[in-house]
Formats: sequence, C-alpha cells, structure tokens
Amino acid sequence: MKKLYLFDSTLRDGAQGENVNFSVMDKVNIVKALDDLGVSYIEAGNPFSNPKDVEFFEKVADLELKSAQIVAFGSTRRVGVDVRQDKSVEVMAKINVKTVAIFGKSWDLHATEVLHTTLEENIAMITDTIKYLKDNGKDVFFYAEHFFDGCKNNPEYAFEVLQAAQNAGASYAILCDTNGGCFPFEIESWTKKAVNALSIPVGIHCHNDTDCAVANTIAGVMAGAEQIHGTFIGIGERCGNTCLATLIPNLQIKLGYDLIPEENLKKLTICARYISDISNITLEDNLPYVGKSAFAHKGGMHIDGVTKLPKSFEHICPEQVGNQRQFLLSEVSGKSAVLQKLKNFAPQITKESPELVEILAMLKEQEQKGYQYEAASASFELLVRKFLGDFKPYFSIEYFKIISEPVDTANTPGSGLIKLKVGDQYKIAADEGNGPVNAIDKALRAALVEFYPDLEGFRLIDYKVRVVDTTSATAAAVRVLVESTDGTDVWTTVGSSTDIINASVMALVDSIEYKLLKSGCKPY
Amino acid sequence: MKKLYLFDSTLRDGAQGENVNFSVMDKVNIVKALDDLGVSYIEAGNPFSNPKDVEFFEKVADLELKSAQIVAFGSTRRVGVDVRQDKSVEVMAKINVKTVAIFGKSWDLHATEVLHTTLEENIAMITDTIKYLKDNGKDVFFYAEHFFDGCKNNPEYAFEVLQAAQNAGASYAILCDTNGGCFPFEIESWTKKAVNALSIPVGIHCHNDTDCAVANTIAGVMAGAEQIHGTFIGIGERCGNTCLATLIPNLQIKLGYDLIPEENLKKLTICARYISDISNITLEDNLPYVGKSAFAHKGGMHIDGVTKLPKSFEHICPEQVGNQRQFLLSEVSGKSAVLQKLKNFAPQITKESPELVEILAMLKEQEQKGYQYEAASASFELLVRKFLGDFKPYFSIEYFKIISEPVDTANTPGSGLIKLKVGDQYKIAADEGNGPVNAIDKALRAALVEFYPDLEGFRLIDYKVRVVDTTSATAAAVRVLVESTDGTDVWTTVGSSTDIINASVMALVDSIEYKLLKSGCKPY
Repeated sequence: MKKLYLFDSTLRDGAQGENVNFSVMDKVNIVKALDDLGVSYIEAGNPFSNPKDVEFFEKVADLELKSAQIVAFGSTRRVGVDVRQDKSVEVMAKINVKTVAIFGKSWDLHATEVLHTTLEENIAMITDTIKYLKDNGKDVFFYAEHFFDGCKNNPEYAFEVLQAAQNAGASYAILCDTNGGCFPFEIESWTKKAVNALSIPVGIHCHNDTDCAVANTIAGVMAGAEQIHGTFIGIGERCGNTCLATLIPNLQIKLGYDLIPEENLKKLTICARYISDISNITLEDNLPYVGKSAFAHKGGMHIDGVTKLPKSFEHICPEQVGNQRQFLLSEVSGKSAVLQKLKNFAPQITKESPELVEILAMLKEQEQKGYQYEAASASFELLVRKFLGDFKPYFSIEYFKIISEPVDTANTPGSGLIKLKVGDQYKIAADEGNGPVNAIDKALRAALVEFYPDLEGFRLIDYKVRVVDTTSATAAAVRVLVESTDGTDVWTTVGSSTDIINASVMALVDSIEYKLLKSGCKPY
Repeated sequence: MKKLYLFDSTLRDGAQGENVNFSVMDKVNIVKALDDLGVSYIEAGNPFSNPKDVEFFEKVADLELKSAQIVAFGSTRRVGVDVRQDKSVEVMAKINVKTVAIFGKSWDLHATEVLHTTLEENIAMITDTIKYLKDNGKDVFFYAEHFFDGCKNNPEYAFEVLQAAQNAGASYAILCDTNGGCFPFEIESWTKKAVNALSIPVGIHCHNDTDCAVANTIAGVMAGAEQIHGTFIGIGERCGNTCLATLIPNLQIKLGYDLIPEENLKKLTICARYISDISNITLEDNLPYVGKSAFAHKGGMHIDGVTKLPKSFEHICPEQVGNQRQFLLSEVSGKSAVLQKLKNFAPQITKESPELVEILAMLKEQEQKGYQYEAASASFELLVRKFLGDFKPYFSIEYFKIISEPVDTANTPGSGLIKLKVGDQYKIAADEGNGPVNAIDKALRAALVEFYPDLEGFRLIDYKVRVVDTTSATAAAVRVLVESTDGTDVWTTVGSSTDIINASVMALVDSIEYKLLKSGCKPY
C-alpha cells in the first residue's frame, strides 16, 4: 500500500468559509481530534494576518501530538521588498513550529495583473522567501497557487516557478486548483508532468467549484501526488475544499492507499460530526460515508436487497467508517424495514409474529394521518411499545390553552397554559414565549421537571415543520419534527395534525416520554 | 457542439431521498420549471408502486410542454410470471405517456442472490418486458441497473444484458452506477466499451456515494454517453444523485457540450432555488454554481484579486448561471438581480436611481429577519410598491386573537377572531377551522369579501413552513410561504416571525393585497 501524507487545512482554508469562526479553544480541540485520527499535517492558521492565530500557535507548543505536525501558513515577501525587511516573512521565520507553508503565484496573469509586477520579480519573491526561511531552520512547503490555471495559460512559466521553489530548498511543491474550476483529466495530466519534472515530492490542493474536488484529488494521487490536501468536512471559501472525510475512505478503503492507521477508519463518522459541532456547521445528511443518510435506504426493493445481501445496495459496509445502516420507514417500505427497526427494542417480534401485521397496518394508518417515522425513530419506538403494552405513561395532558395575538399589539406574541396529571396529582403551569409553540414547550417542561428531575439537562435542538398535503393549503395537515438531546444522545420525534400547535405538542410530549423511558425513570 | 439529452429524475429517484415528499401540485410545478429550462426528459414517477403518481400522470396529460417528454418508470416482469399477467408491466403498457423507462439487473449477483433466479430468466424478464411494451406502442429506455458493479464482477454477463435489451427494441441503454461506488476512470472505461458494443445510444446514471457523481457523469459523457441523468438539486437515496444544476454548466459552459438553450443557462440559479423551495429541502449555500456562497469571497486577497480581475479568483462569471458575486466583508450584492425583478412593475428604477440603494438595504434587512423573496415575488412587489408610495392599503388589521386547544378536548382545535378597518368602517369576523391558521384565514376572507367581491374565487393552494434558524429550536424564526390562485394566476407570498401564527397572517395578508392590486380594485 502506497503511503500518502494527509494535510488538513480545516483551521486555515476552512476558516475562509462563510459563517466559520474558530475560537482558540475550538482550534485546540480540532487539532486533538485530527491528531488522534492520524493526520500527518495540520495547517493551523495564518499568524501574520490573524492575531487569534498567534495566540493559538503559542498554545499549541504545549500539546503532545501523536501523529501530526503543525504547519503555519504565510505568503512570500511583497513586491520590491528586501526579504529581511518583510514583516510577514519575519513572523513565519520566528513562529514556534518547524514547518511553514508559503504560497506564491504560478499563473503569469496573477503576477502581472494582480501583483502588478514582472514574471522575474515574482520568481525572486518565491526564491528569496524560501531561502530565508530555510536559513532560519524551517522546513518549507511551497503552495504553487493557481498552478493548473497557470498551466492552461503559460505552462513554461508555471513549471519555472515550481523549479525555482525546488532550487530554493522547498521540501514539497503543492499544486493548487485555487479557483476550483478544473476537471480530473486536466489535474491528472498536469500533475503527472510536475511529478516527472521535479525531484521533490508533490502535493495536491483542490477546491470544489465544479463539484469535482474529491475526484480531482484522486486524479492527482493517481498521477503521483503524495501530500493530500483538504478540510475535514469540506468547508472553505465559495464551494469549499476537498472533503477529507470522504476522500480518506475513497483512497484507503476503495483504492488501497495508506493514509491513516487502519483501525482509525472507524472513527471517521464520529470525527466528522465532532468537527461539524465545533464549527457550528450542519453536517449534510447526504454527505458520503459519514452523513446521517449515507447508508439510509428508502425504496422497498433496496431494503429487501440490502437485507438479503448488504453489498447489493451498499458500496462499502457502513461499519467500516463508523456509520450505520438505516431503513427509512415510508409508504414504499415494507416488512423487512420494520423488522430491522424492531430488533433494537422488541426482538421478540419476528417475520411470523401476528403482531407484525398489526404494526404494519398501524404504521400505514399513521402515515395517512401525516406521520412519518423515517427520521423519528423515538416516536416509532413509543408507538410500538404502547401498542405492545410495553409502556407505562409518565403523565397525561388534561388540557392546554394557547393564545396568540399580533406581535405589534401584544407584549409577547404567544402565551399558554397546560394542565397535567402525573400519577394522582394535577399540575398547572403557564408561560409565554417567542411564539405559541415556544410558550407551551416552556410551560410543559417547567411543570414536569418537579416530578422528573432527569429532565433537567434535556433540551430541544431542532424544530421542523412540513405541510403534508399541500393541496388543501391552510386546512392541510402539518407534520412537526422535533430533535432533542440530553447531552449524550440525540433523538427525533414527530407529531401530525391539521393544527400546528397540536402537532407540535404531540412531538414535544413524545420527546419527553422517550427521554424518561431511556433514563429508566419510574412513572408516578 | 455535441448535443446531449438531459434526463431529470427529481420526481422519481429524487423522491427516494430522505424527507422528500411531493404532492401532485408540487410535481406539476417542477415539471413546468424543468420544461421551461429545456430539459429533454422528465422522469415523473413510478405509477405502479405509488398511487399518488397515477393521479399525477392523469394530470400531466393536460400540460403543454415546450421541450420535455414525460417518462414513466417501472420494473421488468417478475420472476416466472407471464409478462401479459404482470400487473406492474400492465400499468406501464397502459400509462398515458409515450416513453417508459424499465430497470433490469445487469449484475449477475443480483439475479442469483437477490432475485433468486437464473441468469437466463433474468435476461428473459428484460426481453419479454421490453418487447411487450414496444408492442403496446411505447418507446422503451432500458436502465441497466448496477451495470458498473456487474462489469467488475462478470463483464460478459453485463454486456449480454445490454445486448438483450437492444435486441428486444430498447431505444436507449442507460448505464447505472446504482450503488454510487465507482470512480471516473472506471466509468470512462466501461462506458467506452458499451458505446462501442451497441448500436443504440447510451445513457449515464450516477449516484454520489463516493462524492464523484458529477465527475463520473462527465467521464461517461467523454466516453460517449448521450443521455445524461441526474436530479436537479442532487437529491436522492443515500448520498443523492448527480446534481444537474452543477453538471449542466460544467458540460455546457466549460466543456462545450449542448444541453439546454444557451439563453437558459441564466435561469439555473433561480430554477435550483425554486425546486428546493418546492421540495422543502434547503439548498446548500456552497453548492457549486447555484449556491448562495458559490461566488462569495471572504479572504481579503481574493476580494482584492476579483476586484482587479474577476477571473483571477472565479472560474466562470456568476452571471452566466444567474448567480451573483458576493463579498462577505462588504455588503454590496444583488443589484442586477433586483433590477431584473423591478423591470416588471417599477421600470423607472435604473442602475443609477438612488432608490435602488435603499431597496437593496431594505431587502438585506428583511432577509436578516428571515424573509426570502426568491419564490415570493408577490410579496417582493408589495414591499417595493409600499416603499415607493405606489400602493394604497385596502384594509388594515386592528387586532386578531387566536385560541388553540387540544383536538381531543375541543369541538374544533382552532378558533380566531379578527378586527379589520376598511376605509372608515370597522368589521369584526370570527371563524373556526382545522387549526388556528385555517381559522384566521377563513375569518379574514369572510370579513373582506363583502367589501371586495373580487375575492370570491380566490383561494390558497399551498402553505409551507420552514424554520429559519434551527439552532434555537422552538424559539427560532419561522418563514411561511403561501401560494394562492384566482383560477387564472398563481402567486406566492411570504411572512416571517418567531411566532408561526404571525408569520402566517403576514403571508395571508400579502396574498389578499396582491390579488386586489392585480384585479385593479379601488381601495375604500
């Protein structure tokens, strides 16, 4: 297996993405997670342009890393400035890490039209900077910015730039598709030429503006690139960078390269979710390998096929990357999907059980009312447990009343009261909120936490509304999905009604019941 | 420019995606949008497995389409059944569209391990079905399901299946990477062989499980495939299908193929946003070409470069696909898009008008409150007209009150009253409904129809709710989109608030105001 060196730029190029902002602690946590996974290089910031990064580089010296080297990012000296007088180069020369990555232009047009300088001075900037940093004891990686666009426009010059970087002492030449506009066949052909032309190893750095970043990076690897760039969950300027959470299993599981210790492949899913949590970026459900739906089957035929033979509809085993297979319960799915789900909490039900037929009929009926359990596994479990007599109620709602008025004329737009029965006791609570659903949510939890202190840490993290039968407009049923957490687990519940308040209350009640069940609380 | 034939499967393979559910009206709207764009084929459903699709195919007969043919999807006959006795084939033979697409297995393992039949019977199933449908006057496209996995396992058999389909009269052989596990070099080599082996043209159908669907489809095209499959915004089972909104500009703008009329490329962004709104799927900001951030520059160097020379950091001009450049640090965006919209009702506003700057600022402010005017053109027109002093109010709301109670304990779950001022007159009306929004909708229209009889035929046809900022769960803002019709036109309005009732009332009021404006009614 050929060894490749992973270079993660989540903390530098990833931080260029919209809505991405890392605190120093965020950065430290991400470094630890990537190191634990077995990444070779972590580009952790641009200490000259970002004062927060300077603080980070001071902190990072204390970290004991197992596999990763920290890399600082910076630019060459400016046009016409003596390299010893250039402040940004000085910061890089003094930074407390061994490896620095310097970018320079390899597209002639950038030198002349953006930097407004000559092609010779552009090369001198690169040569001077690399030499100076080498003299200061650094290991220098050279980013050939816009390399592929440069090759399309003036290949001789692009290769001259690479050669200059090598002659000055760079230990890697990183070929960049900075604008992300290339296709695999272009990347492959120019990378091959660069690998042949140079004696130092080559890296590949792609952006996703044609939705080909992963394919382009693979093309670069197949052409001989050894240092592999990307950001872990694909974040980055515009359309993002190569997503390493997808690239790693592509290269290591499917194409036989060696990137991280084999036993760490199972950590990919949890690592992607952890980094997305820290970044406050929602991980797309359909993200290959690590997304929530990456192995979710909905079509009846697919579910039947996967149950008979997993590889019939799965290109790899989800467990290899620490993800799980899911069967979405929907109009088109049948017996085998439901049986799969029952395994977890009602293993006594088999293909032959008479209850299975009744459960399927009940599901169908619920779906016609607008319920959907494909995401709402917690509500599905409650529904089945109640049907099987395997659930003792923790409380019941006697009634609730909600009042809603225009935001302009009322002090607060929503207020509500709710009366509950818990064991033999009655409890009324009221609250107001940003809207009627928020008001009743607050009242409900305030009323119950006295009886069930386990509800203390419990909170809602997502609330989704979908109109089910859009043809009847405001008289249509609405489906509400609520996602909740207690800090450890995350679960989803569903409610459906023509009345959005009713649908919301149902989903909220299910969520609380599921939490109490899961915590093993005893009903009053 | 080589002509390629776009085959959109948003309504069939896309509907297999998690949380995707189309109503019949949703499907009709998507068909119209795709037809308007210039797609060649629209695969609109599986009439055998889904009763809702049967209703749709009846409706679609009335549509006058400019460019697209509607295609129905189905399977071959079952194992060991006479094709004339097979109900699913019968549905396809009788369906009121000319073109049907039939899938059959081309991976030997699927025949033996999933269908539990022989390789010969699998081929007979394909042959019988295609012949029978041809005899019934259909043009038959053959989906070679799992073709590439089949080639890896038993290429002779996979090619035998293609040959059988061609011999039986199929007019296209569609090569499928059903499990989405392939890479471009594999797709290219097997597609080339298939193109050489067959006399009928070849299609390419990819899934995104290695994040290579777009690159794989391009590899298929370069190997000679002519019918190009995907779903418009990439939705589909697991990790989704090839995203056509990305693929089309890749192939047409960058690689010189002919897919849709050149002048329609500018509609790609609006079309993607429209389809995502209908699907109630959030369009990813970083989606290439059409995402909100696809041309958003954050790095200072990038902003500087783009300002000097757009192509220095942009692989194409955003305007070519109807998108816009954004500078995340400065706030100037959207001018030309807004000007386009203003043309229809405020042609006096030009690029130089001082009002334009104010309108852009107002829009930005509204968007921060959660409004979005992509789909809600009627609300946009009202907003601008009100700002320009070009709208006289027809009525105002003095107040409303809504009461919501549990469905079980109340006679009707929602009731509300509303007090309006129309000219000098006050009017109070009340009603009850399937839910609070329905109640206030009925009360509002009952109160107004006395004053404005034009409202008689007016009704709502769609109501959609989206949570805008999901991180704060039930306290988050919600955006309500209402679609209305008077039998002639259809228009969409928007409301946004942390309170769903308030957001709904805003959208309802806009809808009524727009109808009155459009009918030329005089305010009291």
